[in-house]
Amino acid sequence: MDERSALRRLAAAVPAAGDDAAVVDGLVVTTDMLHEATDFPAGTTRYTAGWRAVGASLSDIAAMGADATAAVAAYAAPTLEEADLDAFVAGAVDVCEGVGAEYVGGDLDTASEFAAATTAVGETDAPVRRRGATPGETVCVTGALGRTAAGLRAFDAGDVDRGNDLFQFRPRIDAGLALAPHATAMMDSSDGLARSLHQLAEASEVGFEVDPAAVPVHDAVDDYADSDSDRWEMAATVGEDFELVCTLPTRGVAAARDSLNSALTEIGEATDGGITVDGEPLADEGYTHG
Amino acid sequence: MDERSALRRLAAAVPAAGDDAAVVDGLVVTTDMLHEATDFPAGTTRYTAGWRAVGASLSDIAAMGADATAAVAAYAAPTLEEADLDAFVAGAVDVCEGVGAEYVGGDLDTASEFAAATTAVGETDAPVRRRGATPGETVCVTGALGRTAAGLRAFDAGDVDRGNDLFQFRPRIDAGLALAPHATAMMDSSDGLARSLHQLAEASEVGFEVDPAAVPVHDAVDDYADSDSDRWEMAATVGEDFELVCTLPTRGVAAARDSLNSALTEIGEATDGGITVDGEPLADEGYTHG
Repeated sequence: MDERSALRRLAAAVPAAGDDAAVVDGLVVTTDMLHEATDFPAGTTRYTAGWRAVGASLSDIAAMGADATAAVAAYAAPTLEEADLDAFVAGAVDVCEGVGAEYVGGDLDTASEFAAATTAVGETDAPVRRRGATPGETVCVTGALGRTAAGLRAFDAGDVDRGNDLFQFRPRIDAGLALAPHATAMMDSSDGLARSLHQLAEASEVGFEVDPAAVPVHDAVDDYADSDSDRWEMAATVGEDFELVCTLPTRGVAAARDSLNSALTEIGEATDGGITVDGEPLADEGYTHG
Repeated sequence: MDERSALRRLAAAVPAAGDDAAVVDGLVVTTDMLHEATDFPAGTTRYTAGWRAVGASLSDIAAMGADATAAVAAYAAPTLEEADLDAFVAGAVDVCEGVGAEYVGGDLDTASEFAAATTAVGETDAPVRRRGATPGETVCVTGALGRTAAGLRAFDAGDVDRGNDLFQFRPRIDAGLALAPHATAMMDSSDGLARSLHQLAEASEVGFEVDPAAVPVHDAVDDYADSDSDRWEMAATVGEDFELVCTLPTRGVAAARDSLNSALTEIGEATDGGITVDGEPLADEGYTHG
């Protein structure tokens, strides 16, 4: 099985799974496992890795419209070096502090490859699920897309400082909480905009028509994109950006935007079926976690 | 750094860490990472691995005297086989159901070696810490020790059915909840009785005098132990038994025992200093998680 098939199987076997995070009696729980070969390009510091691994789980809490309470991490590496471990913990603590959550430690293990398994816990009385969008609603995205794609290009180009900076994203807990009273469906863009739209569409049984010119693209993308199509790929399919993608009743968009500290951009609308960009089908392509 | 030193460093860096689980606003969170080479002997089924990995985290919730709410697991293996994954999830679901917690899914990853990172979440208004024991109190243990040592011998002898059965322990959530109003200090015996006593002693700034004849030994140990000293080693230092070790005011032991569904055995008393068995020093030896 590839990982997508396996995750579908897991979701089918465990009723509470299948959304960005599970909800049990108002408690929101999510776990993620990342490893060096696929998630941390050469040049990624352990500080960035701690930030990003814990941030990925916090982003799943944000995607449920929940507040983040705490996070833990299990850290595995071939050897347990003091400086590496201290840096990892510092990154984990800092990303938590930025969203008002507490990093409460974790476990250690030896492994042939550096890996981190992180869990975040949050709270909400009214989680926002992936299902719930209806045709005619507006689809919006927070922040700007392509930050991680630009970070990958920076690492490839040997500009590790910029790569690390771009990889330290701020989880959208505040935005998720502000959107929760308005959004009808929501998830994070960790698999890329294209795949996220397909997942929201499948869960909500709707389609989407997206205006590509409206999609907000991170400034750093323009430093690396070598064509318009490359720019689009970086923003829409590379993924791991951890922005929120949500649907809102059209008349609620202004109120939602007013309640956010970060940008909220309308990129299209929910339809009866099919996922299209400028009327052309949008392929279900994006980041496949490996 | 070895893992013990690294865990100490982690505990020093993260104030909420350092006990069996962290507590934030009544929420109890703990994470563990296990991998094939050190935690799952040849013959361990994926069902047993799912049970045991999630059970280890539930045991940490029990050790705080907390109720278990939910658990998640990140599953990593060289390939994601349907049957393996289904079996792992079934074991995880079953161990949770046995203690009234909900298994709410997890994440998947590829790795050169099978590994599982599990997180359990619980709730308590009055956590029982490792610190809190005072000289003169009685030290008790739930259930019987040496179950895992016997399981390891069973696997070594090729009796994989018995090994798997012995490895599927029941986390002591009920006992932890029943002990919580009485216990002054508590932890689980995952590192073995000897090391657990050293950890409780260090946290509480006390000593312990243990009566070796009083230590409850699991029936299966007698099928494998080849001498009295081997029997003692299996019960006291192999570890990974996930029983609870606690201190109680002597006059509270009877009431605590009456409130438990499982056995509670007095094995000695807290002293001013030194950890002794029949008056001889007990070495700080036990299971070192690798």
